[in-house]
Amino acid sequence: MNKVVVIGATGTLGKAVAGELKARHEVIEVGATRGAYQVDSTDPASVEKLFREIGKVDAVVTTIGKVHFGPLAEMTVEQFWVGLRDKLMGQINVVLGAHQYVNDSGSFTLTSGILAEEPIRLGASATTVNLALEGFVRGAAIELPRGIRINVVSPTVLEESMEGYAPFFRGFEPVSAKRAAQAYLRSVEGAQTGRVYRVG
Amino acid sequence: MNKVVVIGATGTLGKAVAGELKARHEVIEVGATRGAYQVDSTDPASVEKLFREIGKVDAVVTTIGKVHFGPLAEMTVEQFWVGLRDKLMGQINVVLGAHQYVNDSGSFTLTSGILAEEPIRLGASATTVNLALEGFVRGAAIELPRGIRINVVSPTVLEESMEGYAPFFRGFEPVSAKRAAQAYLRSVEGAQTGRVYRVG
Repeated sequence: MNKVVVIGATGTLGKAVAGELKARHEVIEVGATRGAYQVDSTDPASVEKLFREIGKVDAVVTTIGKVHFGPLAEMTVEQFWVGLRDKLMGQINVVLGAHQYVNDSGSFTLTSGILAEEPIRLGASATTVNLALEGFVRGAAIELPRGIRINVVSPTVLEESMEGYAPFFRGFEPVSAKRAAQAYLRSVEGAQTGRVYRVG
Repeated sequence: MNKVVVIGATGTLGKAVAGELKARHEVIEVGATRGAYQVDSTDPASVEKLFREIGKVDAVVTTIGKVHFGPLAEMTVEQFWVGLRDKLMGQINVVLGAHQYVNDSGSFTLTSGILAEEPIRLGASATTVNLALEGFVRGAAIELPRGIRINVVSPTVLEESMEGYAPFFRGFEPVSAKRAAQAYLRSVEGAQTGRVYRVG
């Protein structure tokens, strides 16, 4: 029985991840505005406050992140910054701010997404951010102290999200949030580090 | 004879790229504080001003970018932001701000670096930023209008930089700036788009 924090636990994917983890672990569910705890992960002070309250944990999972979708030729610099501030630095802030609170041999599991590998129209910012997250995990894996591991899960589009996203993902085979959640179990309960677990 | 802008033309790599391009092209050399033109590529207004002055071009090459190197366990969020603002958004700002000034079938060539593939101690921010740039190119390549191409060159450490960088790059075989510059010629004068040209 480990203590696992799920940041983004009120979202479609985070809810499934938290649900699967609960079978064997104590899960602390964190949302932006709901959940047992709240955090604004774009704000390092809010991340620090969260972990001071929670204390030591064995694993941290993040399933968060806003990114702007829009045509590249019309995208403003400010729109491009949305994904960097939110999905990218929102997750990196958690690693930089929380690693002292993670027990020896604990783990981080972040979330990128299929657009890292498969660009789509309107998705240049998402592809940038997702690959940046995979780069961060690659770099951080060899530096985290005390045997702390770090991996990233890259799910394809979720069945539960297809109603809104289908026009952008024609021909992509969606997976259920429950199936995507299995990759988080592999990361949290496995022994690898620096891995990208692709689902779908 | 094409009109090629080299942003970063006063640096070690940019100087070599500009030198090779001059054999066949009109090269506009842009630096941060030196060169025929100056730009602060972290500032979208400065990029806009530069291209209003230069006007239409056939190709834009960027060989710029500061990144913070330091131990991950001690890295602050603010230090992490340096590379995002400078090497990452410095180059993306140029693409977002300059594509209207690039002639049909013109090109952008950006610069990432070997740490995208090969993480080193102190280099988590560099690996993040370099892979983000490769993601941006992957996403932008399918969206840029009018046949405009975009590629990224990922050089290993340069012979000319080994004096300062050798302790971080033990066992890496450096290449000369002149050899790295050949990859930029392949991008500017070739026909591919969405490519990562790795050198070394």
